Amino acid sequence: MLLEQIEQANDIKKIEAKDYDLLAEEIRQFLIQKISVTGGHLASNLGAVELTMALHLSLDLPTDKIIWDVGHQSYTHKLLTGRRDGFESLRKFHGMSGFPKRKESDCDAFDTGHSSTSVSAGLGLAKARDIQGQDHTIVSVIGDGSLTGGMAYEALNNASRLTTNFIIVLNDNNMSISENVGGVSKYLNNIRTAESYQGTKKGVYDTLLNIPMGNAMVNTIRKVKNSVKQLVIPGMFFEDMGITYLGPVDGHDVKGLVKVFKEAKRVKGAVMVHVITEKGKGYEPAVRHPSRFHGTDPFEIETGLPAKPRNVANYTDIFSTVMCKLGNRNEKVVAITAAMPDGTGLKRFRNMYPDRFFDVGIAEEHAVTFAAGLAAGGLKPVVAIYSSFLQRAYDQILHDVCIQNLPVVFAIDRAGLVGSDGETHQGIFDLSYLSSIPNLVVMAPKNKYELSDMMKFAVAYDGPIAVRYPRGVAYSGLEEFRALVELGKSEWIYKESGVALFAVGGMVKVAEEVREALKAAGVSCSLVNARFVEPIDQEAVSEAAKSHDLIVTLEENVASGGYGAKVVEYVNKERLSTRVLPITLPDAYIEHGNVDLLRKEVGTDAESIVAKIKEIL
Amino acid sequence: MLLEQIEQANDIKKIEAKDYDLLAEEIRQFLIQKISVTGGHLASNLGAVELTMALHLSLDLPTDKIIWDVGHQSYTHKLLTGRRDGFESLRKFHGMSGFPKRKESDCDAFDTGHSSTSVSAGLGLAKARDIQGQDHTIVSVIGDGSLTGGMAYEALNNASRLTTNFIIVLNDNNMSISENVGGVSKYLNNIRTAESYQGTKKGVYDTLLNIPMGNAMVNTIRKVKNSVKQLVIPGMFFEDMGITYLGPVDGHDVKGLVKVFKEAKRVKGAVMVHVITEKGKGYEPAVRHPSRFHGTDPFEIETGLPAKPRNVANYTDIFSTVMCKLGNRNEKVVAITAAMPDGTGLKRFRNMYPDRFFDVGIAEEHAVTFAAGLAAGGLKPVVAIYSSFLQRAYDQILHDVCIQNLPVVFAIDRAGLVGSDGETHQGIFDLSYLSSIPNLVVMAPKNKYELSDMMKFAVAYDGPIAVRYPRGVAYSGLEEFRALVELGKSEWIYKESGVALFAVGGMVKVAEEVREALKAAGVSCSLVNARFVEPIDQEAVSEAAKSHDLIVTLEENVASGGYGAKVVEYVNKERLSTRVLPITLPDAYIEHGNVDLLRKEVGTDAESIVAKIKEIL
Repeated sequence: MLLEQIEQANDIKKIEAKDYDLLAEEIRQFLIQKISVTGGHLASNLGAVELTMALHLSLDLPTDKIIWDVGHQSYTHKLLTGRRDGFESLRKFHGMSGFPKRKESDCDAFDTGHSSTSVSAGLGLAKARDIQGQDHTIVSVIGDGSLTGGMAYEALNNASRLTTNFIIVLNDNNMSISENVGGVSKYLNNIRTAESYQGTKKGVYDTLLNIPMGNAMVNTIRKVKNSVKQLVIPGMFFEDMGITYLGPVDGHDVKGLVKVFKEAKRVKGAVMVHVITEKGKGYEPAVRHPSRFHGTDPFEIETGLPAKPRNVANYTDIFSTVMCKLGNRNEKVVAITAAMPDGTGLKRFRNMYPDRFFDVGIAEEHAVTFAAGLAAGGLKPVVAIYSSFLQRAYDQILHDVCIQNLPVVFAIDRAGLVGSDGETHQGIFDLSYLSSIPNLVVMAPKNKYELSDMMKFAVAYDGPIAVRYPRGVAYSGLEEFRALVELGKSEWIYKESGVALFAVGGMVKVAEEVREALKAAGVSCSLVNARFVEPIDQEAVSEAAKSHDLIVTLEENVASGGYGAKVVEYVNKERLSTRVLPITLPDAYIEHGNVDLLRKEVGTDAESIVAKIKEIL
Repeated sequence: MLLEQIEQANDIKKIEAKDYDLLAEEIRQFLIQKISVTGGHLASNLGAVELTMALHLSLDLPTDKIIWDVGHQSYTHKLLTGRRDGFESLRKFHGMSGFPKRKESDCDAFDTGHSSTSVSAGLGLAKARDIQGQDHTIVSVIGDGSLTGGMAYEALNNASRLTTNFIIVLNDNNMSISENVGGVSKYLNNIRTAESYQGTKKGVYDTLLNIPMGNAMVNTIRKVKNSVKQLVIPGMFFEDMGITYLGPVDGHDVKGLVKVFKEAKRVKGAVMVHVITEKGKGYEPAVRHPSRFHGTDPFEIETGLPAKPRNVANYTDIFSTVMCKLGNRNEKVVAITAAMPDGTGLKRFRNMYPDRFFDVGIAEEHAVTFAAGLAAGGLKPVVAIYSSFLQRAYDQILHDVCIQNLPVVFAIDRAGLVGSDGETHQGIFDLSYLSSIPNLVVMAPKNKYELSDMMKFAVAYDGPIAVRYPRGVAYSGLEEFRALVELGKSEWIYKESGVALFAVGGMVKVAEEVREALKAAGVSCSLVNARFVEPIDQEAVSEAAKSHDLIVTLEENVASGGYGAKVVEYVNKERLSTRVLPITLPDAYIEHGNVDLLRKEVGTDAESIVAKIKEIL
């Protein structure tokens, strides 16, 4: 195995050029086999094998720096920098991250996870290098999907001012997670299909040079020639911004790529290398279903089918179904996704109501303000964005939706711990950043029935409102508790005395276990489904305070600014004498790993909570 | 006066075309006179007079919609929609807003304040119109400065998919607040200076048509002609994205503009009208100093000089001075602004250390991640962004700076109430959104000396850290209290018993007044300068709890997730028996007006606070 000869960075340079294709094939087989067992990001990694090899052949790591936009395509980079064994524990608790991590390797120059940050970060590293008189090479690798994110454009706008080397590799597979959308995609597509230009380039020059011209025409023609030179170079827009454009080049030809990178390193200033790759390359099921193999659970290599077929509904499925119903019932309902028709479950809505569905690409900010415009125009937009990605649109929620009190519904999937994607993807800040925004109502459902009920309530509500729900299997317990959803009203599940558990969303299930354990220990225990995090149900808290010795709040969110904090503030304000124990995540980033393990680690599993309560009692 | 004939929307259509220039002149004189008295945004409004007139002549308001990006250039729009009298109370409490407000007029289609939102909002309004089978016209007016904001680009990327009318007016004055920067600016500049193209257009065609060609060359030439057609149309990039481009056109020629808008309304799909205007047009001092006359205090019309010369330092001045010192002392210190070298006070740093200064344009997201890159590269970046604009970079702070614990310093001016700019500009959320971000230290200085001390501390600190300080005059009292700044340590100013006031930043001065009043009423009173909002000084709170009957926290921030909430949480956690009274702003948006009036209104002035304390005692 060639791959076994690669034990650390730069070892790839010992491989003979004739063996590059063989190595690429070995890497692909390695990735397919490992990821089929652990799960992880597959399609994007299969597309970036040769590109990564060529970068490693062209650079000297860790002195030179590669910044991987989003970072889920960095598996080959990990393989080539001595982390082959890490794939055994990929995305597992205390195992190797699925994203670049500076603390994992000095070959990881910058942590990524969210989209469109790499050009900004690379530009910063480049300027830091210049100011300190260093001269290493810096490469940001960004996909065409990430290029629809506005901050990438802000960075390109600034890249033109650099006077020393900065290489931007545009890894163009015509996909974000789903098929890429919008004007930029169109623009890149024009370039991709413009090989004819390449062919005619010489012809055009020749023609112009041979035009018979009088003196009066010299100036005119000179301008035309100058312009046509730009014209026949694709990527003119980048050139016009002051960024040298090279390409498009075949992203699966290692030697060709090495040649282009050599040229790119010689260019002064910012240079963009446009590389065409195929997502899923080398594994048919991933080529056919790049979206499904973007991030995948363990699968059967031969068929590409999931190793463990899923037969229970996720919260995403529930949302998907209720959206179709709502779309049927109310023709003012429109749906918006930021490049995730599959992940958010809006694909079915798209198929049923294509005219009322909008995939805006990876552009969370635009998604939210676009929704504000739709609402101002009289419609009822539902914006479905994962919790951690919605952070990108904090200002748009606050400034464009909520100041005007516009009826936009935020459907926030992946709220709480998400597991294997880790720090950058945990949805553990939304209750804090959302509930300090005036006018915004924030809800969380206890089970799958309540997600439907809350979506119906949200669409009927005349103002901005958010529903946050967790990743994974939708809880189907407590199905007999289905009190009407009323603004700011909690739901009493069990009303006793002693300890009152006020649980938010997914923590209601945990609270049930806590209650069972306390009951078994002879402690009387009430259970309240909080339902509303903003506004909190003050009446329920007051009532609980009267008849209980301890109020315990439970939420999967950081402590600062969360639900528990609000209950404590209220209890303090009203001078209620009951003690409050807020159970929250710590005010910290939480790494990747199985969610159950993570909960134990941070003390939000039922057992840990019971222990804390018993300690107080 | 022609202006007096305009009492409501569409009245401008009664003005004869020959009088347009006269009306424009009257509007300019009106604006200069009114703003010289009230203060307000001048330069941008003077630049947009004819553009606004032409829009009003071409549209039927309020059926048709205009969305003003940022919105400070909407004064002529207000004049032409029956709000002439409003200028008496411009930006005053309960008076007319300086920005578009739907609640102020049905001719204001969408509220704006922050940059680069108008294309997204306009697109939303356009799609809402289409879905509901309406057919009015929608126009977003965006400046070339706002076009450097990434979300504008996200919106343009989506605009290309519209199949019905949507007009984007690019109001291009080659300025954001200061001179515009970056590649896009360069691109637009190429267009602006390309009049020669216009002239040569015919010549080029003729030349190409007359090239003697054999059959073999027909195809080549056909391609060239097709391309040259695009070539001689400026704005090719927009065209390539699928947006029809018209222009550039003279933004001070009403009749010419009306003609172009007529044409634009005929175009199917999204169309961009590129209008060249001069910021400050018609008032020499504003043309010469567009940045100073962007937002101005009252001034003397003849000279352009401030009506009341300022002779005391603002917090911005203090920051400006300390940055120059820090830059001198430590060559790793670099400074970043998002289009505000003047407003943030970084102009002096720029002049002294041009190689370590970066104006990235209106691009807060990029600014923060660029800073993360600089920090990862070994430098010590100071990012100076106003509190309300930093909201735009919430995810970048959380995801790109703080997960990696990078030593980026955030200098946050305009924190707390800012006064006349109102809702969109109040810096009243930063303590909440910042202090729930793990790893981030948050400070606020009590006076001008402490701002310097905190900046020095921040630059020496090895991790992400924020200093937030208010708009306006820097407090110079309490100069004898200058204890060393230590991480997480408050400063005891007066240590007594009875009531303990824990005040954050600018509220220390208010707390002094509260203390005086309480002392006068015979109530013993301690005063603690909180200094750190995250982490809070738990020891000081515990100590105060031991020896005081009441702890009062004071901050200029919303209640949810703020400093008071943290103190209450800590007191609850430790089961301290002392009562806590948090004085905060309400969890609400706060309108424009004099800051002292606003404080009285919301009960955070000394008198109101004293009353609340006395009620408890």
